Amino acid sequence: MAVGSGQLPELHPVAGFKLGIASAGIKKIGRLDLVVMELAANSSVAAVFTKNAFCAAPVQLAKKYLTQQSPRYLLINTGNANAGTGEAGLANARRTCVQLAQLTNVAAEMILPFSTGVIGEPLPTEKITAALPNALMDLHEDNWLKAAQGIMTTDTRPKASSVQIELDGQRVTITGISKGAGMIKPNMATMLGYVATDAAVTTDTLQLMIERAVNRSFNRITIDGDTSTNDSCVLVATGAAKNTLIDGVQHPLFEKLYAAVEQVFVELAQAIIRDGEGATKFVTVDVSGGATEHECLQVAYAVAESPLVKTALFASDPNWGRILAAIGRAGVEQLDVNLISVHINNVLIAERGGRASSYTEQQGGAAMVAEEIVIAIELGRGIAQTTVWTTDFSHDYVTINAEYRT
Amino acid sequence: MAVGSGQLPELHPVAGFKLGIASAGIKKIGRLDLVVMELAANSSVAAVFTKNAFCAAPVQLAKKYLTQQSPRYLLINTGNANAGTGEAGLANARRTCVQLAQLTNVAAEMILPFSTGVIGEPLPTEKITAALPNALMDLHEDNWLKAAQGIMTTDTRPKASSVQIELDGQRVTITGISKGAGMIKPNMATMLGYVATDAAVTTDTLQLMIERAVNRSFNRITIDGDTSTNDSCVLVATGAAKNTLIDGVQHPLFEKLYAAVEQVFVELAQAIIRDGEGATKFVTVDVSGGATEHECLQVAYAVAESPLVKTALFASDPNWGRILAAIGRAGVEQLDVNLISVHINNVLIAERGGRASSYTEQQGGAAMVAEEIVIAIELGRGIAQTTVWTTDFSHDYVTINAEYRT
Repeated sequence: MAVGSGQLPELHPVAGFKLGIASAGIKKIGRLDLVVMELAANSSVAAVFTKNAFCAAPVQLAKKYLTQQSPRYLLINTGNANAGTGEAGLANARRTCVQLAQLTNVAAEMILPFSTGVIGEPLPTEKITAALPNALMDLHEDNWLKAAQGIMTTDTRPKASSVQIELDGQRVTITGISKGAGMIKPNMATMLGYVATDAAVTTDTLQLMIERAVNRSFNRITIDGDTSTNDSCVLVATGAAKNTLIDGVQHPLFEKLYAAVEQVFVELAQAIIRDGEGATKFVTVDVSGGATEHECLQVAYAVAESPLVKTALFASDPNWGRILAAIGRAGVEQLDVNLISVHINNVLIAERGGRASSYTEQQGGAAMVAEEIVIAIELGRGIAQTTVWTTDFSHDYVTINAEYRT
Repeated sequence: MAVGSGQLPELHPVAGFKLGIASAGIKKIGRLDLVVMELAANSSVAAVFTKNAFCAAPVQLAKKYLTQQSPRYLLINTGNANAGTGEAGLANARRTCVQLAQLTNVAAEMILPFSTGVIGEPLPTEKITAALPNALMDLHEDNWLKAAQGIMTTDTRPKASSVQIELDGQRVTITGISKGAGMIKPNMATMLGYVATDAAVTTDTLQLMIERAVNRSFNRITIDGDTSTNDSCVLVATGAAKNTLIDGVQHPLFEKLYAAVEQVFVELAQAIIRDGEGATKFVTVDVSGGATEHECLQVAYAVAESPLVKTALFASDPNWGRILAAIGRAGVEQLDVNLISVHINNVLIAERGGRASSYTEQQGGAAMVAEEIVIAIELGRGIAQTTVWTTDFSHDYVTINAEYRT
């Protein structure tokens, strides 16, 4: 199941950024499961990684390499997460980087490795290195769609976004792909996101940009509250567009580029939710009127992750009692329930601590039938605001997660 | 579905504590839905209530009355939670107390009201007050089982526990009942617990006792992470056993009585888990070796509430990757994954950041088939410990919570 059509926009190539895809037969013969991305020399690279303490070997290695060298290649495999694999896992990840480095005449530390798939199995390094030449031969700037397919695991469809803006008189492209649907199937792990632009941006500024964008996109989605061991997101700026170098948030071009980057990040993050495990609804939880953004997030996640709210969404049941109960237990100090109002798709369902007097079950039922639901919560305490995206909780969620290994 | 036989022990009467049960026809004609409990004069009463900001009208009223008078009656109805009902709800709760006060010649503030059932519907006060005389005529010390049935809503079986100890040369009884299975069905709310003893204990000491006992029982169970709007728990000491009055935690009889009280609380809390929505497993999550109890709780709840862990439990799938991932995202600072070990029912499944070298899928599968599962997590950081009880996540959970109103 998935929400919406999943139709992709035209994916504009990014000058200085090539993608090559191959089939290494890691889990299934013939499946595209290996992606190499080649970055033009002098590209800026920024990245964020999972905060899970059990982070995978490639995550540990990529974080280390990023502090040592400016990356020239990203190496991504599906079918095996190389997580929970200890020292041997680190050695295996390093081995694949060394191999690609030899084929491309760069230092091994210029390769960032990424893995997604089964946890706890040894990485089949020989299958991967054997397929590397094919991936390199396939390198092409116009290969985004194939790469989006090549990083899929249990995703039901590829996820991509592409935006063009004018910056400093130059046309600038931002294109990205992502994969994931929570921690997905048993022992499957990972959200991955790769976004490239031909804008010229310093590494430090790009890092500020990715952190802000991730906090408004990938860090605002939740399917099951389970942070994976392999989550990684990379933003590359090749500089091929020849705009004046953006070197700080005060730079006059920063905000315009940032807005376009954020749009791509939000579309990629939302695509993961639309393809969430067993998802039948795309749900936006908007919390406004908070004293701080933190308390808005507490409320948004309490509602978005409540199994009772999520099963009610699955049933298209306008169950305002469950939403109020989730708000009430979110941990916000001295919450005055009399100031809170809740709308579902513009229908006022609750106010002053209970059901809205204007509300009818008919209105609520009509609002909940939609595939896209907005739950808007006003706290009446201040001006802070946040938005979180999530899915419903369906029978298919249980089936997908319970029956995979049985 | 429910776990275990649900067979109840002999429920010893508590001298000075009577229970009367009647049928008020609140939701269904003929169903036992009204319980009155009568406390001997000079009983000590201690209580704890939900911390949900959207707490129900009876909860607000009971908290207030407790500060004004020493209670003589507890008045409990099922079928209607009187939550999300605003000022009218408070007036209705008060009305039922006033009515019972008139019938029993006590002050209205000596009646503590409790409600459980549908959220947001007006409390049918006339049905309740009409049935009060029948409940009063039924008052009897040997009525615990009938009362346990009378407070059930969607529970599949009554929940009760009873223990006798010798204290100060006297035989002392502790008997209690509980109800609930999380927030249970759509718009159903509530965990309720009532425990009485004939021991003589001051009110202040009894309050310390209930808070400690709740923190090791009802506050350590989680089915869906959704705290209800009506949770209430009451501990009554009638003093009829004539032991020397226990007036502080330093009193020589305190620990012996407390241990028996805690046993009753734990059994009542576990009974709720065994009857959890769609439950097929009774799961104990033991976390030891923490630097603080707080971080043990963070880890225990991350594992116990992870939908991925819970669906794996449903599938009897020894999915150690999901357990490690949940531990890793629990929010414990500077967690060294190399020091962590995880056992499932005495089978070592993970250590040193990955699958245990001694582990086989066969062992894991055999351990997971059991109806009662212990997940024991050693953090290797200190000596703090905690235990949390939970259920698995089954198709029936989704069915129960999604299909009730459709």
